[in-house]
Amino acid sequence: MRFISETPSEGVREQLFILGEISGVLWTPEGAAGTRPLILMGHGGGRHKKDPEIVRRAHRLVTEGGFAVAAVDVPGHGDRPKQEEYDRIATENQARVAAGEELAPLVAAFQSLVARQTVPEWRAVLDALQECEHVGRGPVGYWGVSLGCGLGVPFVAAEPRVRAAVLGLGGALASADAAARVTVPVEFLVQWDDERVPRDQCLALYDAFASTEKTLHANPGKHMEVPDFELDSTLRFFTRHLRP
Amino acid sequence: MRFISETPSEGVREQLFILGEISGVLWTPEGAAGTRPLILMGHGGGRHKKDPEIVRRAHRLVTEGGFAVAAVDVPGHGDRPKQEEYDRIATENQARVAAGEELAPLVAAFQSLVARQTVPEWRAVLDALQECEHVGRGPVGYWGVSLGCGLGVPFVAAEPRVRAAVLGLGGALASADAAARVTVPVEFLVQWDDERVPRDQCLALYDAFASTEKTLHANPGKHMEVPDFELDSTLRFFTRHLRP
Repeated sequence: MRFISETPSEGVREQLFILGEISGVLWTPEGAAGTRPLILMGHGGGRHKKDPEIVRRAHRLVTEGGFAVAAVDVPGHGDRPKQEEYDRIATENQARVAAGEELAPLVAAFQSLVARQTVPEWRAVLDALQECEHVGRGPVGYWGVSLGCGLGVPFVAAEPRVRAAVLGLGGALASADAAARVTVPVEFLVQWDDERVPRDQCLALYDAFASTEKTLHANPGKHMEVPDFELDSTLRFFTRHLRP
Repeated sequence: MRFISETPSEGVREQLFILGEISGVLWTPEGAAGTRPLILMGHGGGRHKKDPEIVRRAHRLVTEGGFAVAAVDVPGHGDRPKQEEYDRIATENQARVAAGEELAPLVAAFQSLVARQTVPEWRAVLDALQECEHVGRGPVGYWGVSLGCGLGVPFVAAEPRVRAAVLGLGGALASADAAARVTVPVEFLVQWDDERVPRDQCLALYDAFASTEKTLHANPGKHMEVPDFELDSTLRFFTRHLRP
């Protein structure tokens, strides 16, 4: 892992890094030393590691929770090169939806394909981050909604270092199989009027998690309209589970 | 309103009161003077105003939120005389369920009947409590699940002084009509494996609230197994809405 830039901002140290082909960012409290819980964040489709919604959440987790937070670009997103195969599939899917096909099964198949690449990538990033003196081998959390849920569920299922996860805005079609292997506490976000993921699909994914502690938070509004108070809840959820 | 006893306990002043035929209890911070937000709590079926689950929640709301909290016995419960009509209906309902009838419609009809009595009773209690110097005319909240939801929804719908409500473990069959008249923020609790209220009934009741801000919290477990961390959330919800 190679750090390529460092910027302090309002109490947060931001470090961009490269690991092989993976571009990522690490946020920690300014002046932090020693081991602390680490939260990996997965960005949404068409977004990137420094999407404003990711940065805003990361800053609060760092400044109010004292966590280390990291995000990496999904292949074909952010600072990573275009992926011809993914682009081709996305274009095909747009055409199929325009021709009347259902969106959800296409998204599910696409996310499964991408997850086969991102799960090992994220595990390698986790290995490398835990070597950093200001991160260390503390408890790990995962936060991701929408594409960050579709890629996050198989990651959380595969990675025993993850102790708690905030997921949501995703459906059973894409993620139920992997969800059945997730046993850590989950906070699961549902948008009641989600125009992209059918409500019964979201409820079925919540149902599929094998976790003893799993809590579903539903709110009115469309896919992108998660209310701000859910970030307060996210912060408390990770504090409860990663700082016992 | 006549106060008939007063007991201090761990920072909480507990006052039992009588208003007409209604027996109730008021909890406030010890030594509190002046106006503060008031939370009315509705107890569950077969329980009473000082049910341990009510007392535990009330104490936290008082000591951590500085709220005034009050609960009254539902007719036929606690310190109130038996109500022959209600007892007769309850006995009939048990027989009908034993004979194979569905429980939910019977409970719904019974709660509607009782609510016609409790809504005016609770409004009168609210009038009287707001005359107390250590309560005053501050913002009002309502907390009630199960029977406390069935009776609470029509109360919240009817009472403009209520600014926020925590409700749950109740279904649309009993409460959807009144819920459509509720516009204040609602935090709504669902037990995912509720053996008394069918899940789709609970989700339909959440759906029925007219509130712009309404958040559904679902957790695994049966009717009576709401996890402890929901009380933390209740405290924050009321703090956000009653102490802006």
